Amino acid sequence: MSSKPAIGFCGLGAMGLGMATNLVKQGYSVTGFDVYPPSLEKFQKAGGIPSTSLSESAKDKPFYIVMVASAAQAQPALFADDGIVNALPKGATLLLTSTVPSSYAQSVEAELKRIGRDDVFFIDAPVSGGAGRAADGTLTIMAGASGAALEKGQWLLAEMSAPSKLFVVEGGVGQGSNMKMVHQVLAAIQILAVSEGYGFGARLGLNGQDVFEAVVASEAWSWMFENRSQRTLKEDYFPGASAVTIILKDTSIITARARQLAFPTPLCSIAEQVYFSALDRGWGANDDAGLVRLWTSDPVSSIASTLAADEKPAKLKLVTDLLSAIHLVAAAEALTLAKHVNIPLAQIYDLAKDAAGGSKQFERLGKEMLPLLDGGEHGNGKRLDDYVQGLRAALDEAQAIKCPSYLGNGALGLLLQTGKSRDLKSLLAFYSV
Amino acid sequence: MSSKPAIGFCGLGAMGLGMATNLVKQGYSVTGFDVYPPSLEKFQKAGGIPSTSLSESAKDKPFYIVMVASAAQAQPALFADDGIVNALPKGATLLLTSTVPSSYAQSVEAELKRIGRDDVFFIDAPVSGGAGRAADGTLTIMAGASGAALEKGQWLLAEMSAPSKLFVVEGGVGQGSNMKMVHQVLAAIQILAVSEGYGFGARLGLNGQDVFEAVVASEAWSWMFENRSQRTLKEDYFPGASAVTIILKDTSIITARARQLAFPTPLCSIAEQVYFSALDRGWGANDDAGLVRLWTSDPVSSIASTLAADEKPAKLKLVTDLLSAIHLVAAAEALTLAKHVNIPLAQIYDLAKDAAGGSKQFERLGKEMLPLLDGGEHGNGKRLDDYVQGLRAALDEAQAIKCPSYLGNGALGLLLQTGKSRDLKSLLAFYSV
Repeated sequence: MSSKPAIGFCGLGAMGLGMATNLVKQGYSVTGFDVYPPSLEKFQKAGGIPSTSLSESAKDKPFYIVMVASAAQAQPALFADDGIVNALPKGATLLLTSTVPSSYAQSVEAELKRIGRDDVFFIDAPVSGGAGRAADGTLTIMAGASGAALEKGQWLLAEMSAPSKLFVVEGGVGQGSNMKMVHQVLAAIQILAVSEGYGFGARLGLNGQDVFEAVVASEAWSWMFENRSQRTLKEDYFPGASAVTIILKDTSIITARARQLAFPTPLCSIAEQVYFSALDRGWGANDDAGLVRLWTSDPVSSIASTLAADEKPAKLKLVTDLLSAIHLVAAAEALTLAKHVNIPLAQIYDLAKDAAGGSKQFERLGKEMLPLLDGGEHGNGKRLDDYVQGLRAALDEAQAIKCPSYLGNGALGLLLQTGKSRDLKSLLAFYSV
Repeated sequence: MSSKPAIGFCGLGAMGLGMATNLVKQGYSVTGFDVYPPSLEKFQKAGGIPSTSLSESAKDKPFYIVMVASAAQAQPALFADDGIVNALPKGATLLLTSTVPSSYAQSVEAELKRIGRDDVFFIDAPVSGGAGRAADGTLTIMAGASGAALEKGQWLLAEMSAPSKLFVVEGGVGQGSNMKMVHQVLAAIQILAVSEGYGFGARLGLNGQDVFEAVVASEAWSWMFENRSQRTLKEDYFPGASAVTIILKDTSIITARARQLAFPTPLCSIAEQVYFSALDRGWGANDDAGLVRLWTSDPVSSIASTLAADEKPAKLKLVTDLLSAIHLVAAAEALTLAKHVNIPLAQIYDLAKDAAGGSKQFERLGKEMLPLLDGGEHGNGKRLDDYVQGLRAALDEAQAIKCPSYLGNGALGLLLQTGKSRDLKSLLAFYSV
């Protein structure tokens, strides 16, 4: 019999199965619930204890992890009569690792209190990193909770995350979700940027492999670009690894919350509209890398470039300049939102630069944004003329070849609104409402 | 023999044929050139003199009108060795009524001088109003030229336009084209808004006829909405009356010039990207009213609403609030651009409010924008809270039903950027670079 505590787990999807299985490998007795029998079978084969009853999965478990797809799924799982909370023992620790609105995480804490179960230690702890890192126990985790809850549960978060990837955010329940939301602003914009970049390249007559090599070696690098390229270059969209509906779940949290706060998220909102248009084409279950099909029906890796060798660098520069400018504005959009929802800027910077939201622009220019956002006197920041010049050239060409550039045009509008000052501080000012 | 002067005419397309035929009806001897034989036949049947030679069409003509599709067509027609200018008699008056970049109109004037033909009186005079008003001689005309050229040619412009619709813009050649460009900012945004409104309505479960009646009776009215509805409600898109490629020609003039000027045109740029996406679907030759198919494959007039009678008004209000906010921002985008290119604001206001760019919002709020843009002290203008509130509610619902709202989200971003001030002056400030 293991001396390690028993753990209950709800939600054995791609992420949850990896997380739960990893805990089994670490020697924990994990009882997993899912509504989908094949997931339970997989979990059992991996050494887990399958359960077809939420109550059973929670009974006598001092620790419980909920990793369902959404707040709409979490609510009945937690609070139905035969749900998790009613079955949890006194003083249990409950981790909600789903991506949910911060207001939902706060409502769970309030509801526990309302029904007399504030003996439960609740931690708002969304994760990031994908199925592979879930299975490895090297996720990025963003946790907000009371000090008492963290004292009870932080070790378990540590089991699931890499040592440098566990971010405990000040401010209690809700701030984990807010930090995730801010990170996903970068993710949501940069996922579409991958396809906008490859699509523009394809229509310029550039082979996808050439675009890939140019972007990853340049200031236009992003984690998403490098990651999604594996699927883009192979047309691995069916289903691929991350469906359009998944990033749409995140954008809906971001833009709905931003509207409530009266906070503008122009690039993220543009991305969301394009994701909706992909849904309308029936691509919701396809990998988001497949959005490049909005630009080209030919696989980007099959495009036989007719460009002379000496023409290519200039065309590739149009693509990298497009992406660099988009990523710059994405960094401004994310960091200003972070400030607006009281996420410590140094912390989100450290998190995002090495996570799925990372980009060269975020790493370099994001760093310059931090002091400009702290309210002190730090001048006006870097001039953005080079970005404007590069982006204008890219959009001149995109227009000439009638190539949509949703994010590029959105970014240019914001950069041009800075007028004659045209510096980082002016760009940030549009968001600092 | 008529005592009226002979007129040469190049470009007998939908607009040109109507204009030339109207002049024939007014008793002029009009010699018309076109590369397309059926157009020449039609013109001959209407009493015109067909010509298959540009030189012939221009020889001995004291007045000549060029109404081709673009600057790319105009340049060889005017300046080829066997083109119009070489054949025009000394002191002829030349009207370019095509929609072209102002820089192109100016280049014609410069080229006439360079080749020693500055005896030709040149007028930059783009038109608006569609084929019907071309044939009636009731077009809106925006004319820029030297005083001497206007003295020679204004009577001919008057023959083609309604008395109150002939706008002579100060500033010489180029300013007619600039005025048209500014007007088309409104047109380009409001054309897409028609489909965004109907599309949103359809996905809310509203029948198109109900949407039509609600919009035209509300603050969301626009000339484009009323005009395009005739085609939207009948799916009359093949070819309909105004192809997507036509408005794209205008957006390309607007956004290319705006980039040169470093002037932001966020809503017009959004519209252009969506027009490009329609081109990619093969809809370029279809009427722009057919863009509603981006939202619904069902005809909007066939949607059988399942909404209870008392639910409809609230849903219809979401649509009208969406459109009102878009039209408000469109007015700001157009009027600030007008100021930037030195178009007299009172004049563009008078022109656009009764032309194809007109809207209730332009008429009312545009009027309030004029003093705010004149540089004097006029306070901060109307508070925009109602717009933000209405638009937020519309976009909350659009997001809930996963309905793209390209312009709506663009407009909200700009409105929210005004921050706490949230007034007309702050909105205009984003464009006043």
